Amino acid sequence: MTAHVVKAFVFDVFGTLVDWRGGVAREAAVFLKNYSQGAHNAEAFADAWRARYQPAMQRVRSGARPFTKLDVLHRENLEEVLGELGIDISRIPAEAIDELNLAWHRLDPWPDTVEGLTRLKSRHIIAPLSNGNIRLMIDMAKHGGLPWDAILGAEVAQAYKPSPEAYERTAAVLSLRPEEVCMVAAHNSDLAAAQKCGLKTAFMPRPLEHGASQTTDLKAEGNWDWVASDLVDLAKQLGV
Amino acid sequence: MTAHVVKAFVFDVFGTLVDWRGGVAREAAVFLKNYSQGAHNAEAFADAWRARYQPAMQRVRSGARPFTKLDVLHRENLEEVLGELGIDISRIPAEAIDELNLAWHRLDPWPDTVEGLTRLKSRHIIAPLSNGNIRLMIDMAKHGGLPWDAILGAEVAQAYKPSPEAYERTAAVLSLRPEEVCMVAAHNSDLAAAQKCGLKTAFMPRPLEHGASQTTDLKAEGNWDWVASDLVDLAKQLGV
Repeated sequence: MTAHVVKAFVFDVFGTLVDWRGGVAREAAVFLKNYSQGAHNAEAFADAWRARYQPAMQRVRSGARPFTKLDVLHRENLEEVLGELGIDISRIPAEAIDELNLAWHRLDPWPDTVEGLTRLKSRHIIAPLSNGNIRLMIDMAKHGGLPWDAILGAEVAQAYKPSPEAYERTAAVLSLRPEEVCMVAAHNSDLAAAQKCGLKTAFMPRPLEHGASQTTDLKAEGNWDWVASDLVDLAKQLGV
Repeated sequence: MTAHVVKAFVFDVFGTLVDWRGGVAREAAVFLKNYSQGAHNAEAFADAWRARYQPAMQRVRSGARPFTKLDVLHRENLEEVLGELGIDISRIPAEAIDELNLAWHRLDPWPDTVEGLTRLKSRHIIAPLSNGNIRLMIDMAKHGGLPWDAILGAEVAQAYKPSPEAYERTAAVLSLRPEEVCMVAAHNSDLAAAQKCGLKTAFMPRPLEHGASQTTDLKAEGNWDWVASDLVDLAKQLGV
């Protein structure tokens, strides 16, 4: 498979490019120490918060709720998780909750991410196609040195993945045909949705996204255009 | 005036950061040589094309036409200008017209632009707030090395400056209050519209934007928060 036709690579971000679980747990550990006497495990807290991610977006995808940026959904989900754990949020300063919500803005890239993006950028347009909102992606890029050409994704498209509009409108703002855009993700379901819209697809596993006991997305499960071990390997396969 | 409150600087682009007239004329000169035997002056051609810019956007601003990206308006305007000059477009390959339309994607930055943006980026979010569409801004940034944190502007806001929505929605996607955003422009009218929306403002003249005989926007005509001689001077005033 040659990459001559592909003008832009667009990327899933949470899990594919950055370690959301480690980053959220790191900040949650400090928060939980302060506000629940360390009674809760930080990784389990990160998982519980993330578990509310898809259901919250589903209300937008289904039309039950107008498009709402992920920072707002994260904040609502955070209050729910704290309540579920029996932590009385009325006794916590709102600023401390706001600050924990920004943990998603400060996630660290995987070790190969910045080199891989930089190499791909030398010949292609690179942009996130994440469900994260624009400001979240800007802060994360400044934190981790992600060299984006533009910030695309759910907020620009006003649609959450895997809704087809998220992929189709991203190609449209790039003034590209779907087959000139390649979706890169560590999640087979994301690639399946992109492929249905006519995008090219590239998979790489991130076997530690969910911790050492991860059982999902350990390998390619579709007929993807590229399968790589990491982002630097993908760049090498593409000759950049 | 200190900049402590300003989290993001957003920029007018055509004229403020890049030399649209010189860049368009350079490519138009080649085109006109090929397709009108050089019978037309390239700078006058650039001016005539640009003269149709505001009226075309006004149809969108007034609601007479749904939001349409600038590349499309430029292409329509180009055909009109060619017709006005008596050039028979039916005898020109569509690809040649498409290619000339992309001259706007390949405009050169003014000499101080890249250094100024890079310095401002070290402490602030920087993004275009241009009427140019996303792909146009991406290509221009790759061409000229503009180190944007994100591509914002009319296409993201779905509104053309100076409509208030263009400024207000840009602050909203940045999750900032208007006074935390500073509009930078070489055009007093752009700053006046931004100031009405509560944004901070910074002016710098670009006395050669319209050529050596320029008579407009040679100096600040409003109560702007900063007035600088160029973008590097603005960065110095801001201590970055």
